[in-house]
Amino acid sequence: MPAADASAIVRPRLTAGQVRALVADLSELLGADRVHTGEDVRRQHGSDESFHAPAPPDVVVAPRSTDEAVAIVGVCRRHGAPVVPFGAGTSLEGHIGALQGGVSVDMREMNRILRVSLDDLDVTVEAGVTRRQLDARLRPEGVFFAVDPGADATIGGMVSTGASGTMTVRYGAMRENVLSLLVVTPRGELLKTRSRARKSSAGYDLTRLLVGAEGTLGLVCEVTLRVHATPEAMSAAVAVFPTLRDAVECCIEVAQNAIPVARMELADESQIQAINAYSELDMTVAPTLFFEFHGTEAEVAAQAAETGRIAEGHGAAGFRWATDEAERRALWRARHDAYHAVRAMHPGRQALTTDACVPISRLADVILDTRRDLDEHGLNGSIVGHVGDGNFHVTLMLDVDDGDEVARGMAFHDRLVRRAIEAEGTCTGEHGVGYGKAPYLPLEHGTAGVGWMRAIKQALDPDDLFNPGKILDL
Amino acid sequence: MPAADASAIVRPRLTAGQVRALVADLSELLGADRVHTGEDVRRQHGSDESFHAPAPPDVVVAPRSTDEAVAIVGVCRRHGAPVVPFGAGTSLEGHIGALQGGVSVDMREMNRILRVSLDDLDVTVEAGVTRRQLDARLRPEGVFFAVDPGADATIGGMVSTGASGTMTVRYGAMRENVLSLLVVTPRGELLKTRSRARKSSAGYDLTRLLVGAEGTLGLVCEVTLRVHATPEAMSAAVAVFPTLRDAVECCIEVAQNAIPVARMELADESQIQAINAYSELDMTVAPTLFFEFHGTEAEVAAQAAETGRIAEGHGAAGFRWATDEAERRALWRARHDAYHAVRAMHPGRQALTTDACVPISRLADVILDTRRDLDEHGLNGSIVGHVGDGNFHVTLMLDVDDGDEVARGMAFHDRLVRRAIEAEGTCTGEHGVGYGKAPYLPLEHGTAGVGWMRAIKQALDPDDLFNPGKILDL
Repeated sequence: MPAADASAIVRPRLTAGQVRALVADLSELLGADRVHTGEDVRRQHGSDESFHAPAPPDVVVAPRSTDEAVAIVGVCRRHGAPVVPFGAGTSLEGHIGALQGGVSVDMREMNRILRVSLDDLDVTVEAGVTRRQLDARLRPEGVFFAVDPGADATIGGMVSTGASGTMTVRYGAMRENVLSLLVVTPRGELLKTRSRARKSSAGYDLTRLLVGAEGTLGLVCEVTLRVHATPEAMSAAVAVFPTLRDAVECCIEVAQNAIPVARMELADESQIQAINAYSELDMTVAPTLFFEFHGTEAEVAAQAAETGRIAEGHGAAGFRWATDEAERRALWRARHDAYHAVRAMHPGRQALTTDACVPISRLADVILDTRRDLDEHGLNGSIVGHVGDGNFHVTLMLDVDDGDEVARGMAFHDRLVRRAIEAEGTCTGEHGVGYGKAPYLPLEHGTAGVGWMRAIKQALDPDDLFNPGKILDL
Repeated sequence: MPAADASAIVRPRLTAGQVRALVADLSELLGADRVHTGEDVRRQHGSDESFHAPAPPDVVVAPRSTDEAVAIVGVCRRHGAPVVPFGAGTSLEGHIGALQGGVSVDMREMNRILRVSLDDLDVTVEAGVTRRQLDARLRPEGVFFAVDPGADATIGGMVSTGASGTMTVRYGAMRENVLSLLVVTPRGELLKTRSRARKSSAGYDLTRLLVGAEGTLGLVCEVTLRVHATPEAMSAAVAVFPTLRDAVECCIEVAQNAIPVARMELADESQIQAINAYSELDMTVAPTLFFEFHGTEAEVAAQAAETGRIAEGHGAAGFRWATDEAERRALWRARHDAYHAVRAMHPGRQALTTDACVPISRLADVILDTRRDLDEHGLNGSIVGHVGDGNFHVTLMLDVDDGDEVARGMAFHDRLVRRAIEAEGTCTGEHGVGYGKAPYLPLEHGTAGVGWMRAIKQALDPDDLFNPGKILDL
């Protein structure tokens, strides 16, 4: 984790007098009671769930409409104040830190679900709508939104980090599920990226340019998303393998047999221990795959039977299949609580969570090397993975008062990223770059790739006003 | 089709002396026998399958390796010569016309399939590999590439137009199936857009920026694609509906029931007449849906039965289901020959083929209005559609010697595009912009959207060297 240090940034912050003038203009726009400069609210908006140092903004405001968002960006432009979009604060690479001060634009008051179309299977929401809020609205309609990171993130935040989750193997990540965006550009214009048509070849793909841009190119105000019809039946299954390599090879064979698994998740032994302790379960402590199947009753039964047969071919014991709704939910709750389970096992320590993604054929080697690396360096780390995508997470539990342990943790993280890139993979499959991984982009994308990203950023945000210091070390 | 006229472009072409100097440098690089300036070869490379006026380049060259492609771009840069990538010449909006002269870079000699990974379900090919060539290589391996435009296009061309096809409803378009690209940039650098990981959140999505960029941002040399495991079973079905609206409403209900149809295609009465005549069939002349189902034997049977039940609910007669391989192929050949069938019905006339895409809830109205428009203006036009995506094509057969008919055809085309955009759709779902639809981009994307596209183009290709005059009327 080299140079992920706010102090390395040299752009001068606004002076106290400049901040006062900025606050005065924002207060005129929104009313003084909606412009927040208190220490607590600023600290809260400068901190995410990552290990990175917080970086509080000078001011926090929360627009209630797209018009207000446009006006806020206008004020920021006039004052040369950085604009740092804020969603639920659940990001993991320091995305929302105001490295150069400026205005944190908290989108949570823009939380209306504007439109649901069951005929077109799409919805339009304001950026501050959260994933669970949308789920609750959609469930009675018989449709669902298929991107499910662990956190109850806002949809705008999920757009900006290019989020994905356990169902991406079947339904795609944000990139595949965002149809169109309405954003305020760094020049203060309102830009609609695209029509609502399911597909288009009409010019450059501005939508996908903004998905994963982490607020550096625009402030996302409205999002049009694809949703999917809720399948008639769902079932879950668990399989326990002799070795991690057996588990990964099972996944490869499932994909080669075109079994449309809805979820296919891996947990290592250390993770299962943590889940057992946290969720009071007695799962076998061994490399474990969690599956979910969607379809009709008959399809789900056939998919589970076929997957069970493949798992047994790779030495799986106890392929357990849960069609009962309560049992299925309990099983997935255990998987979803993996992060909290690991944290609960190590009270007093702080979590460093990171992710990487490699071609699935390289996954077993990379995870085994990672496991060995953790053990050799005496680090408390657990591995879970969206193994169908080749994406895995490591949660390190570090004693922040032990400088040597923190240093070993950082060195491990550095080796992990380099190992993933050497294996034809990426430094982040779904958490994003923020300022935590910005130093690795040249390693992954080379001079030409980073040069293009920098040229695009400079063309669209010539004053480097939008979330400066993220993705690119400009 | 306003202003789609090569003569509107004002940039001066290279002089005869400048062309001689360019040819001399290219000859030194490749050998004189590989640098083509003959009239026939230049005319062939300036003509696609569209209605638009051809625009021959000054020179045609065909690199045999990425290194040669880099070197060719270097020569073009030194001479200020436009670079116009050429694939199979099957595009439909004038993409390959050399509006400002320069060098047509024919990619067909870069036609090696470099790598097939059955574990990762991905392949890497050179840009000149064609769709059918790739199919033939993959079929014995039990995998397939799922984007199938009618033409035997090159993969590089399909990347550049953002192609899709009949299976996009299930497997996605090029955008969802391209993992990574190796391109020569307008600055002459070699750029790899991305790793081979199945997903990534590491910075701006340069891959999707290039998909659909029509050669205006880079010359595509290598493409890494997702492939899919061939399903165990496939079956096809045909259903005939009382009205076009019934057919579209059937499609909506199929999607709402989460039936994972692999194909769902619409043909109108006029199209069925043409197919009957061309393929010597006796299909009922009525709005018709063609379906295909992929899965296990049991899944395919269940999907077909469920779809049949839904179709009957919308008044379908004669839901015919073909599991026999020969029958299934014959049925799809008839659908794929739709374009040729229409052309064969109108000997001596020239085809104007266009496409648009709207949200599926608007599709019935838009198609019915389009049908009425054709009839009111006495135009020979047939409609087919990838109806599961809301995408449809109109093929007009025009007598090019009848100035009034051509004018009526152009006016119809203009209304069609405006109707699609008004219905929250796009001026092109899969054919791309070229110079045929460039005049409509401001209508679809507004000032802010076109402003961003222009800013990106200028940042990455400041000398407007790559396929000038396409997508954007710069």
